[in-house]
Amino acid sequence: MPSNQQILLDNRPQGEASTSNFKLVATETPALQDNQVLVKHHYLSLDPYMRGRMNDGKSYAQPQPLGEVMIGGTVGEVVESKHPRYAVGDAVVGMGGWQQYSVVDASVPGALRKVDTSKVPLSHYLGAVGMPGVTAWYGLVKIIAPKPGETVVVSAASGAVGSAVGALAKARGCRVVGIAGGPDKCAYVKNELGFDDCVDYREHKDYTSLAKALKVACPNGIDGYFENVGGMVLDAVLLRTNAFARIAVCGMIAGYDGQPLPLANPALILVNRLKVEGFIVSEHMEVWPEALTELGELVGSGKFRPRETVAEGIAAAPEAFLGLLKGKNFGKQLVKLV
Amino acid sequence: MPSNQQILLDNRPQGEASTSNFKLVATETPALQDNQVLVKHHYLSLDPYMRGRMNDGKSYAQPQPLGEVMIGGTVGEVVESKHPRYAVGDAVVGMGGWQQYSVVDASVPGALRKVDTSKVPLSHYLGAVGMPGVTAWYGLVKIIAPKPGETVVVSAASGAVGSAVGALAKARGCRVVGIAGGPDKCAYVKNELGFDDCVDYREHKDYTSLAKALKVACPNGIDGYFENVGGMVLDAVLLRTNAFARIAVCGMIAGYDGQPLPLANPALILVNRLKVEGFIVSEHMEVWPEALTELGELVGSGKFRPRETVAEGIAAAPEAFLGLLKGKNFGKQLVKLV
Repeated sequence: MPSNQQILLDNRPQGEASTSNFKLVATETPALQDNQVLVKHHYLSLDPYMRGRMNDGKSYAQPQPLGEVMIGGTVGEVVESKHPRYAVGDAVVGMGGWQQYSVVDASVPGALRKVDTSKVPLSHYLGAVGMPGVTAWYGLVKIIAPKPGETVVVSAASGAVGSAVGALAKARGCRVVGIAGGPDKCAYVKNELGFDDCVDYREHKDYTSLAKALKVACPNGIDGYFENVGGMVLDAVLLRTNAFARIAVCGMIAGYDGQPLPLANPALILVNRLKVEGFIVSEHMEVWPEALTELGELVGSGKFRPRETVAEGIAAAPEAFLGLLKGKNFGKQLVKLV
Repeated sequence: MPSNQQILLDNRPQGEASTSNFKLVATETPALQDNQVLVKHHYLSLDPYMRGRMNDGKSYAQPQPLGEVMIGGTVGEVVESKHPRYAVGDAVVGMGGWQQYSVVDASVPGALRKVDTSKVPLSHYLGAVGMPGVTAWYGLVKIIAPKPGETVVVSAASGAVGSAVGALAKARGCRVVGIAGGPDKCAYVKNELGFDDCVDYREHKDYTSLAKALKVACPNGIDGYFENVGGMVLDAVLLRTNAFARIAVCGMIAGYDGQPLPLANPALILVNRLKVEGFIVSEHMEVWPEALTELGELVGSGKFRPRETVAEGIAAAPEAFLGLLKGKNFGKQLVKLV
């Protein structure tokens, strides 16, 4: 029965989240029941959606309960098993939460998934070949549905979802333009991820200025937009949309602390006959196999090589998470636990 | 060569439109060329989209040119024909504009359409069985796509488009709730048009108050919304949408004078996984036959009996149009020209 360090949600943020919202505790892992598996986590995934769960308001998901282990995706290895299909040493991905170990009822469909680490490194199953990758795939393929030659823009382009949107859109013959914060991220988006261009929103103090930069980066207008941030960036993109553009709304991180986030000119939805659609990837499990196959091939073949930012040890998770919300990470934000 | 009174766009509105933007002139109708038809207009249609055409800014359609006859739908009779398929006395619908007569090249596809007035009165081909009706049909059937038992809300519910949305949604087994301005319109929407309920937006000074009234009228939430007005009404409806609700954006009349019209909480698009789609009925000609068949049956059978507001004589058109923009009309706004 190994000792298990865990991070609980201790109290809810008033406005901006802080490390004092979390609490580190230690317990012992319990003895296994039939069908249960003990997983030792190698990596914990940190994702923007977790900020929404910390609030108590109505949203698409239940709030994270106070005093319980923070929700989160994990990859690791089976270290003890009372389920016939799982053996010690199996590499698995699941939703183990912010802790070193988890006990999983492996008979629950979707609770645990074995993964092949021969071509794709284990950590990527939390990023490009995991939930963020499938999120990118769904919004791009099912909502934006781009045609070759169209221009696709994605915000938070250097992040786990944004980088995958870029790789998938390039594979479909699109012009791909990122929006990111700061010259380093923009250079990474262009030079390493292979986007056609990237606009640094921090160089612009209002949306009309940002829209001018987008006009230069998107000389043929914008046909598809993958939205991760909201606010000024969305206002700017709307000004440059072509007729019949499609906007997949995946996140609006700019409003996660509760500040008002109005849209300046919704009449553009009519003027440009836009389709704007919000989605949550966990409600579209039917696409996961097809999406993961394509993403696994892109990563396995080396065509898509996203960076990771790795914090060390469970105690570093809250600080790393707050950094993610402020855009301090480069690519997928992980916590290494072993 | 009869004398033809016409109304031209003389100058563009600065803010609110006024009668001084228009000019009444008289000309003679020219002699016909081959394939041309001379139509004597019985009714001119006045519609909110015309306000958009009066502006010079970028929109989905070219601005109305200055010094030319205002664009507009017309119904009338053929009084002279040099086209083999049209005979004197034929009842026809077209885009004759704000004038008493028009000369139409009947060989241009879609320029003129013969209509049957045995069951449907001629004027209704400008409303319920014309462009406004097909607009309602497209937004409801192709974007909202309601299931029986779902709740559909429509703004400007007493108008030509809104009333048709209600009739079509009732025919599909939906709970139908209108939003309209003033107790008389709300009584008409409920008692004559047969909506399940109607909310008077004028009783509410902000969108949270209006949202509370919508909660009472829509106890199971809102699954589909047909948007004609924008502004506070849209903000209120968004607060009451169910997961996966669909919003067809047909008009945003609240912003036609150029004032800013922000959307308070676009994050609801994500939280409730909404689909918001703008459309223009003239870009979907493929649905017109199916839509007109259903609308003609609803009107012909007496199931759908929309009111009309009729101004008398071409000179009355500008005043009637400005009244339409302020919601003074009851149902379809027409100008009777004979």
